[in-house]
Order: sequence, then C-alpha cells, then structure tokens
Amino acid sequence: MTTHSLDHSGILERRARVLSPTYRLFYEEPLQIVRAEGVWMYDAQGRRYLDAYNNVPVVGHCHPYVVEALTRQARTLNTHTRYLAEQPLELAEQLLATMPRELGNVVYTCTGSEANDLAVRVSKAVTGGTGFIITDFSYHGVTDVLSGMSPEDGGPLGPGVYAVPSPAGADGPAAFGEHVRECLERMRAEGVSLAALLVDTIFSSDGVYADPRGFLAEAVRHVQAAGGLFIADEVQPGFGRLGETMWGFQRHGVLPDLVTMGKPMGNGHPVAAVAARPDVFARFARRRHYFNTYGGNSVSCAAALAVLEVIRDQNLLENARRTGEYLRRGLDALAARTSAIAAVRGAGLFLGVELRHNEASGLAGAAETKRVVNGMCRRGVLLGSTGRHGDVLKIRSPLTFETQHADLLLEALEQTLGGKD
Amino acid sequence: MTTHSLDHSGILERRARVLSPTYRLFYEEPLQIVRAEGVWMYDAQGRRYLDAYNNVPVVGHCHPYVVEALTRQARTLNTHTRYLAEQPLELAEQLLATMPRELGNVVYTCTGSEANDLAVRVSKAVTGGTGFIITDFSYHGVTDVLSGMSPEDGGPLGPGVYAVPSPAGADGPAAFGEHVRECLERMRAEGVSLAALLVDTIFSSDGVYADPRGFLAEAVRHVQAAGGLFIADEVQPGFGRLGETMWGFQRHGVLPDLVTMGKPMGNGHPVAAVAARPDVFARFARRRHYFNTYGGNSVSCAAALAVLEVIRDQNLLENARRTGEYLRRGLDALAARTSAIAAVRGAGLFLGVELRHNEASGLAGAAETKRVVNGMCRRGVLLGSTGRHGDVLKIRSPLTFETQHADLLLEALEQTLGGKD
Repeated sequence: MTTHSLDHSGILERRARVLSPTYRLFYEEPLQIVRAEGVWMYDAQGRRYLDAYNNVPVVGHCHPYVVEALTRQARTLNTHTRYLAEQPLELAEQLLATMPRELGNVVYTCTGSEANDLAVRVSKAVTGGTGFIITDFSYHGVTDVLSGMSPEDGGPLGPGVYAVPSPAGADGPAAFGEHVRECLERMRAEGVSLAALLVDTIFSSDGVYADPRGFLAEAVRHVQAAGGLFIADEVQPGFGRLGETMWGFQRHGVLPDLVTMGKPMGNGHPVAAVAARPDVFARFARRRHYFNTYGGNSVSCAAALAVLEVIRDQNLLENARRTGEYLRRGLDALAARTSAIAAVRGAGLFLGVELRHNEASGLAGAAETKRVVNGMCRRGVLLGSTGRHGDVLKIRSPLTFETQHADLLLEALEQTLGGKD
Repeated sequence: MTTHSLDHSGILERRARVLSPTYRLFYEEPLQIVRAEGVWMYDAQGRRYLDAYNNVPVVGHCHPYVVEALTRQARTLNTHTRYLAEQPLELAEQLLATMPRELGNVVYTCTGSEANDLAVRVSKAVTGGTGFIITDFSYHGVTDVLSGMSPEDGGPLGPGVYAVPSPAGADGPAAFGEHVRECLERMRAEGVSLAALLVDTIFSSDGVYADPRGFLAEAVRHVQAAGGLFIADEVQPGFGRLGETMWGFQRHGVLPDLVTMGKPMGNGHPVAAVAARPDVFARFARRRHYFNTYGGNSVSCAAALAVLEVIRDQNLLENARRTGEYLRRGLDALAARTSAIAAVRGAGLFLGVELRHNEASGLAGAAETKRVVNGMCRRGVLLGSTGRHGDVLKIRSPLTFETQHADLLLEALEQTLGGKD
C-alpha cells in the first residue's frame, strides 16, 4: 500500500479564504471527491473508495432512476404547495402507508433540521409546555432551538431542555425508562411543563444503541401518560436503514405523536418531512399556518417518490437486513479475534463498533478510533466515528451494500486494527 | 371571458386527507399547475398564466441551462462539504464578488429560513446579546426562533424581540432611523442587550418599501454604534430583483455584518446561504462549528452557479431595471386614471400597488385587493398580496419579464380594477 498524499494546498487555501471557519473536513488527508456511483466514490486522481459512511445516498450514489425522475420534473415544473399538485399527495400517501394508521398527516420541509424544528414548535403549541427531554449526547439539528437540544454540538442546553443518560452500558437500555421517569419528576419539581420527548431512535450520536428491541417503550409510556408528545427523530434511522422496519420507532413497538425524517429521503436532494397524528397538526393549525417555500416542491417530491420506488423495487429493506446481518456477524467474529473491539451494536446497515485500547497500535479508544477511520480511508473504505467518547466507528453505508462490499470492509478493518498504518 | 371553474374535488379531498391543515392554497379557485416555462405557468387544462408573482424561478421557470447544470451534476456526484470540492468555493467566490469586500466568508444552508436562523445564532454568539430589532409586520422564516421574529405569521414576538414600525406612510422612511434609535433606548432601559437589527431590505411583508434610497442607513448606524450587528435579509430582494444592485442593502449604501439569501438562489432548487464579515464567523467558530448536510452540496452549488451565470449572461439585472421601470410607469399612469390605486412602490421587478376603496367594485382596500388578485388570476395573470392591511398587490415576476408581459399585466389590471369580474 502506498501512501496517498496529494497536494490539495490550492483548494485548501481557497476554502480557508472564502468559507467560514465553522466548516470541518473529514480525514487527516482530506479527500477531493469528484464523482460517485452506487457504493463507490472517486477522488480527483481516480482512486475509488467504498462508501460505508454516507447515509444520504440511501439507494446508492447517483442512482439513475432517481436522477431521471429529478431531471424529468426539473424540466417540467418546479413549484410550491400553494398550487394543487399530485406529487405531494402521492408522496404523503406513500410515506403514511409505511407508518401506523394513527399517523395521518404530512408537512414537508427541506432538511431534517427544519423537520425537527417544526416538531418542536408543534409540540410547544399543542401542549402549551416548554419542557423537552433528550439524551445527553444527542444531535437533532442546526437551528437555534435545536442547537439547545443537541449536546453533541458542544453548546449549552436550551431553556426547559433536560438531558437523560444515553442507553449506554449493560444496564443502559433497561434503565432508560426509569431515567425518563425521574426526569419527568424533576421537571415537575422545577415547575417546567412538559412538551415532548425527542429521541433519535437509533441513538446515533450517543453511540448507536438499537437493542434490545422495545427498550424505548417504557420511556414513551411515561411521557405520553404525563401529557407530553413523543417525537421520533428518524432523520438517521429512517427509510429502511435498520433492515426490518421502515422506521426505527417500529422496532420499539411505540407510537410517536410526530415523526421527523430527512437525510436519505431524496438520495441527496434536500427534502424532508414531519408526519403526525392529524389532531396534533390540527391543534397547531388553529394558531398558525406553515409555508415552507421549497418544502414539497415538485422536484423534491419527484426525487422522494423515486427513492421510495427504488427501496421497494430493489428490496432494499431486506438487503439492509441481510447484508447488515452478514456484516454484523463478520464484525462479531473480528471482535472475537482482537481485544481492540469492545462491542458491536446496531441494526441493519447502521452499525457502531466501539473500540478500546489496541495493543497493536498502543492507542486508547478515541485515539484508536481516529487512527482506524484514517487508516480505513487510506485503505479505500470510508467510515466515520461517533459517541460521547469518540470511540465508536460509525458504519452507515448506502442500502445497496452487498456481501462483497462487507468483505472488503472487514478485510480492511482487520488489517487496520492490526496496527499497521 | 368564460368563467374558469374546474372540478378539483378529488385532489382537494386527497389533500385534506393527507396534508396537514397548516397548508394554504392560493386563489378562490385553486390552480392545478402542471408545467411551466419562462414566465408562463400552465394548468391541467392547458390554460396558461403569466407568472408575475413567483420570485423563486428568478431566471424563468425550468430554465434549460439551469436544468442541464443540475442534471449533469446529479448524474456525477451529489455530496457534502466535508470532502474537498471546487463548486462550493467557486460559488462562494462568485457570490462574494457581488458584495462589498468586507463580506468575505460564506456558509451554505438549504433555505432562507435556515440562513436567517443561522444569522440569529451567530449574532447572539458574537455579541453575547439576546435583543433583536425587526419591523412590525416582517417575515423572516419558519423556524422556532424566527417565528418569534415574524409578526406577519401571526404569533407573539419571541423573548428579547422588539418590533419597530415599518417605514410606511409619507414620513415613514425618514422616521425609520429615529424609531430604531428609540427602540435601542427602550432595550437599554429594559436591560436587554442588543444582538442585531434584522431587516428585509425591501420590507416585503410590511408592504414593499424601497424609497428613498438610503433611508435604512441611519438605523444601521445607530445599531452598529450600539455594538449590534446588522443582518440584511436578502431572501426576497436579492439576486438582482431590484434592478440596480444585486442586493437590496446596496441601494441603501449600508454595510451589513451578515447577509442572508435564499429563494431565487437555485431557481427552485433548495439552496441558500449566509455571507458575513470573516471576523464575525471567526468569533462564532471559536465556540461552535456548523454542518448542514445538504448545504453547499454538489448539486445545489451547480444549480446556484448556473443561476448566477444566466443572470450575468442574459443581463437580467439590467432587464429587471428596464422592465421594472416600464411596468412602474404603466402602473403610475393607471394610478392617474383610477382612484383605486393609493400608491405604487418598489424597485426593479419587486413592486407593490397599494389599493384603496374602489368605486367600481364598491370594495375597500383589503377586500378589493383580494378581488383583484382573484380577478387577475381568472384573466390569466398571477399576482399576490401583502402588507399589514392586506391591501397591497405584490408583483414579483421572474427577471426575464419583458415589456410585452408588462403590457399584458397592465391591461388585465385595468380591466380588473374596472370592477368587471
């Protein structure tokens, strides 16, 4: 393996000049990606990378069916929801058909952040409450109110926001309901009236916690019994990624009041949505209307409809389950061969691999994870990291990932964990 | 002219079933638009409408050059800003080249709401203040924090938000600076520390106030002298719409600390941005980073670059000025012939026509405006309404509008004002 060091100084210098310093690049040696197809991304030198990180291109990069649908609609009409149109209705009908019957209405936004932000607004308006419960290393979006509900982002919690421990550790999932119950008591004692529990149903930034199925139910029961709403943040786990159900909340057998979705919905096109019980939106609608200029526009709907069609036609839910299980077994086997892997978690094609001190590299969990992410990149496999301690590899490939791709990933991971950079 | 009544009951019923009741449709007889091209939109029955309302398709509906750029990029790569890429840099360079040198950095978002929301976050972080000054019938977006800064939306002002009177009436513009100065005094007296003045530089929802050039300068001077930032909300006036300058703030000879842009930026594709002084973003970056999944993605940048190219190549700034002046003269002449027009305001292709009691229809301002908007629609010309009293016709066509289109609009308006429905 040759070292893959390129001179990006020109582009880095332009970037530093015109983009805000709030931007961050992936990898010690940033990649200049110029094209992508399916599970592969290609850099400016033509080197290819297996994409095991990006969840947005859910049906694979540049899927021709989605591109064609997008193109056809962009040539014909791209307008908003204040005219009548079939597409937003067709899309809403198809989305709602994947959910419990109680969730009957849709509002379109452009991003998962806008979807979560709207769910927060709706929760406040409908309950009259201002109190929100989140997990203590969660991420829910970039808007002002969500930055106060996204401790992963590094800022302080917003007013009325309470963070409960992530379902980490052996007792974590079992204790989660009790943490939420105690939090509700604390809110009552402090005179904060409850609006909602907002949870990413795969607990991605918390470190990826999927099992046991159903552990979320007790927390949701406590919140709904206390008059609060449950917002299922499906921006990351949604659209079949978890391999058994279209939405993460379905693995837990719970009924959300609001469901937010985003990232993979348009395979890269900015489209997102909130689904909710009709009475929830109806109560919000008594006070406010909501118009999102691009939300549910013709092209966004065409892209999202094409994505749903590909997920069905290529049977990607089943593929995510099958390839995910295959990859999971491979990771478990690898964990049995190396002391560097502390745990393998997740569901379908959303997996977290928690690392600990690696004797081969001599590095502890977080430093080792960083080394592995960069080492995998040099070996041509793209991964990320997550978790409060930065010690969890995040594997979250397009749902078109096949066993041969899993094999490539596993082989590269075994080599990288072997400590040979 | 035949009445144009269609049976939309099927689609309306589906819409009521699956979309949230927070949605609103335009016109007494809603339009089912199925395709559009240039300044024309076509309904399901093939009837065409002159679009004098939609500012998003700034270079004309479905402009082939923009569609081609979008398609080409969507086929090649659609990924985010955590890899190196030329497009977001090229776009930032081109955007910044249209602005004063002091504005040197860009952050991408997907919508004008996200752009304004980020500008608010940045203002709070950079100044340490929580106080915002807006106008009293302004609209700045749909997020939680912006809903408290958008009195047009009907909700209460957020904490720390102060509303000053719009620059309405004969003395309005001249008094605007003084209103802001008084507001700053009130904030000091009430112990609220200033973050920013947030102003739509065409005061669209306030009723369209463009003149005299420069009336905004005194207010900005007071705010910046008090240590606050000035956020120019260019979501509506930006991208050459006002016909003389690329951005509305430039007509006023002021230097914003932050500039937000959105709607027309991708001719319908969801792309938006914040430009700012580098030191402003740098101070924000000390505490927080900012990653917007779709913001500045490959396809969004390609669309926005194509739009800027068309604006330059088709000389649309000059066209907006020329056609806007022609239309303005026609409206002024019409105002001289009918007592129903109280005032014609605006710049370039962003015009407001304030209506008063119309003897021909017997209706007062707001009811007359509603009647005229619907009557114009039946005559095949799409307009909107705005202003605190709902008595201002909003004319805001694609920038490819030509004198022949202005003539059609003027003729239809004269007939409609004549009271014959």
